[in-house]
Amino acid sequence: MTAVYGYSPSGNCHKVRLLLEQMDRPYTWIETDSSRGETRTPGYLAKNPNGQVPMLELDDGRVLVESNAILCFLAAGTPLLPSDPWQHAQALRWMFFEQYSHEPAIAVARFIRGWTEADSPRRAELPALQARGHRALVVMDGHLSAGAAWFSGNAYGVADIALFAYTAVAPDGGFDLAPYPALRDWLARVRGTPGFIDMPAPAPVNAARLAATD
Amino acid sequence: MTAVYGYSPSGNCHKVRLLLEQMDRPYTWIETDSSRGETRTPGYLAKNPNGQVPMLELDDGRVLVESNAILCFLAAGTPLLPSDPWQHAQALRWMFFEQYSHEPAIAVARFIRGWTEADSPRRAELPALQARGHRALVVMDGHLSAGAAWFSGNAYGVADIALFAYTAVAPDGGFDLAPYPALRDWLARVRGTPGFIDMPAPAPVNAARLAATD
Repeated sequence: MTAVYGYSPSGNCHKVRLLLEQMDRPYTWIETDSSRGETRTPGYLAKNPNGQVPMLELDDGRVLVESNAILCFLAAGTPLLPSDPWQHAQALRWMFFEQYSHEPAIAVARFIRGWTEADSPRRAELPALQARGHRALVVMDGHLSAGAAWFSGNAYGVADIALFAYTAVAPDGGFDLAPYPALRDWLARVRGTPGFIDMPAPAPVNAARLAATD
Repeated sequence: MTAVYGYSPSGNCHKVRLLLEQMDRPYTWIETDSSRGETRTPGYLAKNPNGQVPMLELDDGRVLVESNAILCFLAAGTPLLPSDPWQHAQALRWMFFEQYSHEPAIAVARFIRGWTEADSPRRAELPALQARGHRALVVMDGHLSAGAAWFSGNAYGVADIALFAYTAVAPDGGFDLAPYPALRDWLARVRGTPGFIDMPAPAPVNAARLAATD
């Protein structure tokens, strides 16, 4: 059976779980805590030298990494990845935007607030990450405010899954979503898609840090 | 005719130029100097609210942004983008790696060294970018050393173009490629592909800074 190596409270990992659930495709989840070095063991690095989760492993042992490449591979041939060349290109456009302009700000801010100590020097990065993350949220909100319902071309699909993952938990990173009504409506639409499941909550230690930080 | 808005010494922009040249597809290049704010004008932001180059504009006015999404769109249906699902997924894997793990270190280090003043506070970022960039180069060199000739599945293609752009000019970012013989061989193979063209040299002011920085 298809195996997914993933850390449950990671948005990049949850993307893959959400897609597989919505495709109703069987899989085995192998919990791999990247925050405790489980992606830096010799065994793991032999499969993924870049030392990251998620990682997809097929029955025959072949592995695929990079969350958004996994989404495209699994969704190929389904309505979740547009077949029309232009719509397909727009989905890819938003997936690259997610990995370049969105995740490195919003996911990293959440990580620093929830997965580092309160006196970590990395907390000095937060103001710049806030500014950068809000720029990405403005771009997303603008796309939706201009009349688009989704990011994966004309219908719900992999780019929505990719962008939902960390937008839904952006408040964990200190991002107030109140100024973005179109974005909040889109989050609600994604939550209403068939087979939707929420990301598991972080462990109590991380949840407590997220709740405690200004 | 297809138009490309691009800044010539940008690797992200050169990706698109290199592909179009190798496909022998006519295009108009509209020089857009992102280092002088030309991607932040109201007219440009109306087309690309994320304020980046490159941007592809079709005859009918539709625009596509994100360099790697543009590569996939233009190369679809040609041998430069694998049609086999697994090879296709591997090409995407390396293109997402490029935008997440490679470009934000190697391209940004080159930008800081060549496009900021010698006393810019951003120069303090260089040691961390060096470490991060070398981690990406090690992963690439390992892939090639394990027997792969290319990054786009089994043949030269869009993932090679994406990774070539800033790897070829990594020395501008202070990266010594001497420890990576397999990587240097791959750079030479890319340079030998039909229709290859080099990225234009930076303007004299930027070239002088790159030459002057330790």
